[in-house]
Amino acid sequence: MEEKQDCQCDGDKGCNCESEKNGCNCDEEKAGCNCEDEKNDAHSGDSKKGIKKLTINNFSSVKNVIAIMSGKGGVGKSSVTSLLASGFRKRGFEVGVLDADLTGPSVPKMFGIKGMAKGNDFGILASESSTGIKVMSINLLVPREDDPVIWRGPILANTVKQFWTDVIWGDLDYLFVDLPPGTGDVPLTVMQSIPLDGLVIVTSPQELAVMIVNKAIKMAKQLDIPILGLIENMSSAVCPKCGEEFQLFGPGHSKEISDRFCIPFLGSMPVDPFLAKLCDHGKVEEYYHNLFINFIPDRFVGSRKNQDKSDNER
Amino acid sequence: MEEKQDCQCDGDKGCNCESEKNGCNCDEEKAGCNCEDEKNDAHSGDSKKGIKKLTINNFSSVKNVIAIMSGKGGVGKSSVTSLLASGFRKRGFEVGVLDADLTGPSVPKMFGIKGMAKGNDFGILASESSTGIKVMSINLLVPREDDPVIWRGPILANTVKQFWTDVIWGDLDYLFVDLPPGTGDVPLTVMQSIPLDGLVIVTSPQELAVMIVNKAIKMAKQLDIPILGLIENMSSAVCPKCGEEFQLFGPGHSKEISDRFCIPFLGSMPVDPFLAKLCDHGKVEEYYHNLFINFIPDRFVGSRKNQDKSDNER
Repeated sequence: MEEKQDCQCDGDKGCNCESEKNGCNCDEEKAGCNCEDEKNDAHSGDSKKGIKKLTINNFSSVKNVIAIMSGKGGVGKSSVTSLLASGFRKRGFEVGVLDADLTGPSVPKMFGIKGMAKGNDFGILASESSTGIKVMSINLLVPREDDPVIWRGPILANTVKQFWTDVIWGDLDYLFVDLPPGTGDVPLTVMQSIPLDGLVIVTSPQELAVMIVNKAIKMAKQLDIPILGLIENMSSAVCPKCGEEFQLFGPGHSKEISDRFCIPFLGSMPVDPFLAKLCDHGKVEEYYHNLFINFIPDRFVGSRKNQDKSDNER
Repeated sequence: MEEKQDCQCDGDKGCNCESEKNGCNCDEEKAGCNCEDEKNDAHSGDSKKGIKKLTINNFSSVKNVIAIMSGKGGVGKSSVTSLLASGFRKRGFEVGVLDADLTGPSVPKMFGIKGMAKGNDFGILASESSTGIKVMSINLLVPREDDPVIWRGPILANTVKQFWTDVIWGDLDYLFVDLPPGTGDVPLTVMQSIPLDGLVIVTSPQELAVMIVNKAIKMAKQLDIPILGLIENMSSAVCPKCGEEFQLFGPGHSKEISDRFCIPFLGSMPVDPFLAKLCDHGKVEEYYHNLFINFIPDRFVGSRKNQDKSDNER
């Protein structure tokens, strides 16, 4: 393997793009680097891995689909998903949330949506939050919110596909997909079968989280999903007595991740007991954080609305 | 449905045992309550659901298998697993950790175990920590610790089975199994195929976590796995400036869970930046917390050592 002096690529598939820009030509980098691939448009409908994307039903039209992923659990993926959805809704967009975390679904509770989803002859109707955000989650299809869904991967994967093909979403500008932790069946199916426009990666400051978030990023790169940016959650906490802001888990590593994989760093969030309280009380839409108002892939809107629906695979 | 006045059972399958003790006789409770089932010995080797437990190989003997589960990610399952293992090791037991979180494996990093596991003609050798804790994890079988394992459920499930049947653990008093979040393939396979002596449930104070932890508890009850106790993590944080201890996510709900499902409450842990640091530096064994020294199902030790190995299913 010929490798130039300035190459920082360690030979894995998530290579350091800077090195490539600098002229790195080790074989692994050529094989695995996705810098060019990231520029491709996910709208094409076909996955490069040969699996055709599913087309949505005739009663729905979704302009942009953005998945939220972390690899590691408990870093606040569902909060970030809900806050992104709320932020976009506040800006006047039509927004939906597809809760793909079937064995740990949090979204309906955060939005205060209770009761089971309704259906009609044409499909399942997405439920609606108080500000008009459409939501579909397995917890809207089971009688009790704490009933477990003890299913194996293929069933989980098919259910998520149905959340795309069989749910009547109506006209949406943005659909946010809350992925479960890990790199197993459901994230794989979402990335292969739903025409994603991009991924937002959520991490937390622990080094352990970084290792696992790196796995998620490498998976996204292998599957040619553009990564829109990185959000660091739980960066700090604020003492309610003296007001001191301190690091809960030590210093963050977002810059390191963002540099290594050429991902824009979108910002960081502290642990906020007020947000936890709002989520617990179904009022996540009342929270305000600058990060989620200013996060903007405006360039996206509008591309998928009139796509050909003739080859729906469901 | 006939229901007595003092019944607290809401008709779901994870009924309130106290109600049954008080004479509740609603149909659901009769059908779903596992109070009696919990008294059964998991050593028998046969799952009540008709799936035969796997027998370990001839080079290993494990007296007690305890899984750590939460349902929700990021509540500190891997920390609790590692601290339990370390606590038992400090007391002189032979201890192992089976990292069943294949898509988010944290255990080797916490114990500072690097490099790939070795094998011989008879199986894969468990790696060993500095104090002699045996560890097996997918991260000891991949070339780089942040390489993702993008596998579907059946492959994940088979790998975990092999961690039991094909890994040479030697003689262990306790094997702790770190389960992934959720109630999907891997937790299901571990509960069905590995002869568990019990589960430790980890939760955090958010109401959202409670809902999802309840799912995990109901799953364990449906699969007849005895629940040894409940640990609440991230109950509080301590300000490094003024020393104030405050609730990060609001008040805990452990008593409510513990009462509802008749599970012993083992204790709570604060968020401790020092523990996070030790975990990041592979030194989790140096942490001391009373909870993990005094947690003891001493009644367990010794039952499986001489079990019949003739019907190994691998």
